[in-house]
Amino acid sequence: MKLSDASALVEGALKEVKLPGGDLAGLYEPVTYGLSSGGKRLRPGLLLMTAEAFGAESAVEKAMPAALGLEMFHNFTLLHDDVMDNSAMRRNRPSVQAKWDVNTAILSGDTMLTLATHNMMQVPDALLRPVLDVFNDMAIKVYEGQRLDMDFETRQDVTTDKYIEMIGAKTGALLGAASKIGAMLGGASEKDAAQMEKFGYLLGLAFQIQDDWLDVYGDSNTFGKPIGGDINNGKKSFLLLTALESGTPEASALKVAMEMPAGDTKVKTVTRIYEKLNLSETVRKQVNHYSSEALSALKKTSLSDAAKEPFKALIDKLTGRKK
Amino acid sequence: MKLSDASALVEGALKEVKLPGGDLAGLYEPVTYGLSSGGKRLRPGLLLMTAEAFGAESAVEKAMPAALGLEMFHNFTLLHDDVMDNSAMRRNRPSVQAKWDVNTAILSGDTMLTLATHNMMQVPDALLRPVLDVFNDMAIKVYEGQRLDMDFETRQDVTTDKYIEMIGAKTGALLGAASKIGAMLGGASEKDAAQMEKFGYLLGLAFQIQDDWLDVYGDSNTFGKPIGGDINNGKKSFLLLTALESGTPEASALKVAMEMPAGDTKVKTVTRIYEKLNLSETVRKQVNHYSSEALSALKKTSLSDAAKEPFKALIDKLTGRKK
Repeated sequence: MKLSDASALVEGALKEVKLPGGDLAGLYEPVTYGLSSGGKRLRPGLLLMTAEAFGAESAVEKAMPAALGLEMFHNFTLLHDDVMDNSAMRRNRPSVQAKWDVNTAILSGDTMLTLATHNMMQVPDALLRPVLDVFNDMAIKVYEGQRLDMDFETRQDVTTDKYIEMIGAKTGALLGAASKIGAMLGGASEKDAAQMEKFGYLLGLAFQIQDDWLDVYGDSNTFGKPIGGDINNGKKSFLLLTALESGTPEASALKVAMEMPAGDTKVKTVTRIYEKLNLSETVRKQVNHYSSEALSALKKTSLSDAAKEPFKALIDKLTGRKK
Repeated sequence: MKLSDASALVEGALKEVKLPGGDLAGLYEPVTYGLSSGGKRLRPGLLLMTAEAFGAESAVEKAMPAALGLEMFHNFTLLHDDVMDNSAMRRNRPSVQAKWDVNTAILSGDTMLTLATHNMMQVPDALLRPVLDVFNDMAIKVYEGQRLDMDFETRQDVTTDKYIEMIGAKTGALLGAASKIGAMLGGASEKDAAQMEKFGYLLGLAFQIQDDWLDVYGDSNTFGKPIGGDINNGKKSFLLLTALESGTPEASALKVAMEMPAGDTKVKTVTRIYEKLNLSETVRKQVNHYSSEALSALKKTSLSDAAKEPFKALIDKLTGRKK
């Protein structure tokens, strides 16, 4: 199953999610709003794809509640991240904290986390504990990654290695859990499930580095956020850290440029330095590196060549090799 | 087992909780800080008491992880509530959001919720799903109660009935879940577990109404918060709503007094009106009403008279009948 097909199934199932209204609309409307924001549905989609790859078509329907649980978890983190980053926009719409308020984003976010756990529990008894363990471990990783990300803003000792550790926790762990839980629900062996977790984790690294690149070079409509946001926010992105580690005169120029007030001039100045350093090429190499590692984890599974195809296509899609 | 004995066990077990430090201290130190704030340890204490009542002494140790899970859940809500209420103090110490910042309280709070779920999972396989279902349902109730509480601030149609519904969700559900999960872990019958849930829920109502009274008439040192906080914050407490529903001239005077700027004069004026209406007596009656209902739920269980004693003592303690 291709991601687009899996995503369409997720989209349909999300529309069936019914939550209380009335006196409690103030709690649940932001939940529904958050869940209706579209997006690629990458995490639940990947879970369904993996369930199907190991368990054939009948596994997909059974895996749907867990897939929705993962999407709810992801959206819970978005509600809280937008508060922490004070982001007014999310996927070309006002964020929950902007449309309602900070307290609503906190409380409806909490609600989404518990709803996510409730959904993750809709698995066979024999898998309940192992699936929830993967889910909770992943959640802890995501919080740890977010904490590191926040701390990096004021730390001066951040290296690209630490950055990889951070995105591994913040982004990789969730894609790893999606692949692993899908595999478990599809009846994969422990070894295959572990390889699929690696696949998801490495895919997450490649995807996040590509995302950092899109923050500078993407199309703001497709990207869903204003271009140059990382530069204006002084975010220690893969591009910035790589440039600072380059030991070139441009690294010093970059330090000065990053002190400029936020705005188009700052974005243009920093982008020009990135271009002098040929950073797009460095990013491309790094994305290819993690993509290849993801591919080799995939190859180590017992999946047939045909069953591997959609995952290969997913790598290409997420890393911009193919649209 | 008395609450004080159960609480001492919880206190000891909390000291054994080890969390990561180093790069991640920014995430976990606020968790440890939140958990070290003391307090009565009512919720985990009640869980252990109930486990012992139905399952004898050997059930206590086995129920400890779930008890810690409940205390972590409770403290997670305190971290987030303090952000939502912008409270600088909690149990005579700076709140997490005041000592660190809002983002830390949000993210470390999220972490506590997942750690809570992880701890709640440390129960026998046969009880995993039922215990987690009680836990998640309770969590949802608590969020719903908090949402109602927040909405009540600006609503003009709040009655004492709606208020009871709100505190039932925000406070009663958690005490109900504590009693029920304790009973389940102690091997109680379904009927007994359901009665104990009622007991906890009704005890929670009595306790919360008493707490509203203490907010006006308590000792700020024992209470842990400044006296008159509800009056100054215009909170629709049981006292305020009862007074407004009284249909007396004092109700009109109260509306005017509540428009006064926050401060000692406002607190004194409102308190004088409460005294004219003899509200302490009304509160006492209401607390006694729910205490009696809690007692009758307790009586319907199969517990021996001796086993019921600590729960009777708990009612007296929490509702101020005995210290």
